[in-house]
Amino acid sequence: MPARTSLSGFPEWLPAERIVELSILDQLRETFELHGFASLETRAVETLDELQRKGETSKEVYMLERLQDRGNDRHDKKERPLGLHFDLTVPFARYVLENAGNLTFPFRRYQIQKVWRGERPQDGRFREFTQADIDIVGNGTLAFHHEVEIPLVIIEALSKLPIPPVTVLVNNRKVVQGFCEGIGVTDVEQALRSIDKLDKIGPEGVAAEMREFGFEQEQVDRLLELASLSGDDEQVLDGVRALGVSNDLIEEGLEELGALLQAAAKRAPHRVRAELKIARGLDYYTGTVYETMLEGNEDLGSICSGGRYDSLASDGKRSFPGVGISIGVSRLVSRILASDLAVASRSVPTCVLVAVMNEESRSASDDVAHDLRSRGIPTEVSPSSAKFGKQIRYADRRGIPYVWFIGEDGSHEVKDIRSGDQVSADPKAWEPPANDLLPTVKPGE
Amino acid sequence: MPARTSLSGFPEWLPAERIVELSILDQLRETFELHGFASLETRAVETLDELQRKGETSKEVYMLERLQDRGNDRHDKKERPLGLHFDLTVPFARYVLENAGNLTFPFRRYQIQKVWRGERPQDGRFREFTQADIDIVGNGTLAFHHEVEIPLVIIEALSKLPIPPVTVLVNNRKVVQGFCEGIGVTDVEQALRSIDKLDKIGPEGVAAEMREFGFEQEQVDRLLELASLSGDDEQVLDGVRALGVSNDLIEEGLEELGALLQAAAKRAPHRVRAELKIARGLDYYTGTVYETMLEGNEDLGSICSGGRYDSLASDGKRSFPGVGISIGVSRLVSRILASDLAVASRSVPTCVLVAVMNEESRSASDDVAHDLRSRGIPTEVSPSSAKFGKQIRYADRRGIPYVWFIGEDGSHEVKDIRSGDQVSADPKAWEPPANDLLPTVKPGE
Repeated sequence: MPARTSLSGFPEWLPAERIVELSILDQLRETFELHGFASLETRAVETLDELQRKGETSKEVYMLERLQDRGNDRHDKKERPLGLHFDLTVPFARYVLENAGNLTFPFRRYQIQKVWRGERPQDGRFREFTQADIDIVGNGTLAFHHEVEIPLVIIEALSKLPIPPVTVLVNNRKVVQGFCEGIGVTDVEQALRSIDKLDKIGPEGVAAEMREFGFEQEQVDRLLELASLSGDDEQVLDGVRALGVSNDLIEEGLEELGALLQAAAKRAPHRVRAELKIARGLDYYTGTVYETMLEGNEDLGSICSGGRYDSLASDGKRSFPGVGISIGVSRLVSRILASDLAVASRSVPTCVLVAVMNEESRSASDDVAHDLRSRGIPTEVSPSSAKFGKQIRYADRRGIPYVWFIGEDGSHEVKDIRSGDQVSADPKAWEPPANDLLPTVKPGE
Repeated sequence: MPARTSLSGFPEWLPAERIVELSILDQLRETFELHGFASLETRAVETLDELQRKGETSKEVYMLERLQDRGNDRHDKKERPLGLHFDLTVPFARYVLENAGNLTFPFRRYQIQKVWRGERPQDGRFREFTQADIDIVGNGTLAFHHEVEIPLVIIEALSKLPIPPVTVLVNNRKVVQGFCEGIGVTDVEQALRSIDKLDKIGPEGVAAEMREFGFEQEQVDRLLELASLSGDDEQVLDGVRALGVSNDLIEEGLEELGALLQAAAKRAPHRVRAELKIARGLDYYTGTVYETMLEGNEDLGSICSGGRYDSLASDGKRSFPGVGISIGVSRLVSRILASDLAVASRSVPTCVLVAVMNEESRSASDDVAHDLRSRGIPTEVSPSSAKFGKQIRYADRRGIPYVWFIGEDGSHEVKDIRSGDQVSADPKAWEPPANDLLPTVKPGE
């Protein structure tokens, strides 16, 4: 991953790069809020119990230890061990349980936060990165139509970013589960694990592994046929039906896939495709599952994944089904920056630099800045009263488009330092062109 | 601190509370950007060396340990120990050194991020909280006028929040240092430590402590006289001069204080006061120092502190002087929420709920939502097609002001559920009153 960092796996951005990231975060937030998702933040820290509640052991976790306790045999005995969250789903599930009495269901939230994974530094993976999640959670029940809604919100959100088009690949646990049951496969988890390797080791490799685990050749053939199917309309469902395996669970799953493809054909044509080989996550998702590919950047893998879980959270008495999806923002931003997919028009928010003739008159320049800011125009006053040429260079190096001059006679002029045009202007009335007011993020070369 | 949390010291907010916090963060960001500060984020993690570089040992630090390495005698030997940052100054200093070649100086940045302190849980202090910092950093030199600028930006930023007025209390290290030198006190650090206790133990206590450390009675009297001075105009400077101690350093400090008070009198009357007893931070600040009191909430202590340092960062060859200030956002939000200083008008971003007559016509409701959203109106479609009364209650419980109905004849009506007014409306043209478009944050009762 081509991120600048002085500590492997912990990317940081330069100011102009941060403007690109910030515009992406702002855009995601805007779309999520347009769809009624409420903002939420959870603490960075969970108890180890909570982090491992789902039997999740594949994720690398950073544990916390007070510096003062370091090397001590025993930590503070009053407190359970604490670790940094590795995703936003585990903390959200905990939050829902703790606050259920104060939430209204179905509860829609978005959450944009850093997560951490205690990877070994030499593995070069991100150890800190930003995720942007949306989830809809019900109390006891959650209608299927939310499984249609989630990918459409995400496609809308991603379509507003400076990136190539995305395709959301979907599958449905019910189809695969029903199919396995229909052909007498009992170890559904193993079937999923093998199918998941299809892109890596090919159909022969998958077949060999399945046989190793005791699958019959007929079962292997059928599963590979199923996994080969994909499409963005009813034909893919007919393809499944044509395999001649049928039961209520398959049919329910196919109807759900069909409803999703139909809605997508209307709202986001050609942006959603059923791929029956998608197996990742099907061990814990119970209905629709999502992966998202970025056109021309398929090497990134899925930039946005999620699905439906019948029990996002449960305390034994109550159960909270949910459906959600998570964008790997840092991976996306890292690619955008490394491939120059987008660049910021300047490295600072500043639109106008007010020049300072000499230190005695700095207060007059402050007055102009005050007037401009009061009308929402980001403004700096020149830090030095050096020659105007030097003050213009200060603006130029930051991409600040305008420099404001106060004449000895108290006249005002503003110069567009890109074109060199200089006009007289009133600090209480002048407005920059809308495009220049704030930094913009545009597609790169 | 009255924050809701299931883990002591790690506050979390309910959705309506988060809207209050978010509006405060948005407002701070807007003011900072109006003044040309660029956004920056640094990683949450620093090496222990970096965290202790300033000989800082008073801050409690959380160290990280990979779960997989836990209990092992030795951690990954390839990597220096890592800990979570306890403020945003240490990481910013490190960032400036690492990226100096790609930054333009003076460099102005704001940084709004979580920080962590490894406090003992039973102490009840925040262990995770949000800070909002602004700093201006020069390469080699940094003009004094930035010491005037910083508190004025902060006063403007805080004045736009739903909180009582603030007063920025200022002092200047040069005055105190020069005064100590003028009266023959060599242990300036001890003088500062004692004066810092003035509010806690009173002048007699401070005097006793100073005598214990070998200060002469005459010195003690003079320092207590100095510390008793405060004011928001030239008189306080005359008061210092009247003490009859004078040298170049005192005079330089008094001129700086005077310039600050003069600018503040113009830009923020009565919001800046010199208090010569402010000693906190004077051990590492080298010029002006700031503390900020919230009217009627003085028990919070300073909600925003900072100052000038001649060397924010240095690599031996280069030195980067800076001036900055840091708002303790979580402490402020916690007080705002606990004291009902501000409340959100609703708990969701949603302005309109589109009712659903029956599941067959859900797509028609989706169409309306699509039209409204395309004009920037946050909209949800009712999750259920239950009786309209129930759908209205869904909106009511969240504070969603409008419910949209599609008649069997395809007619459209929108109901303000607060007034009960219902009017026919065109989904491609209807606009809510500007005040209803997004959640607003207003002063509480």
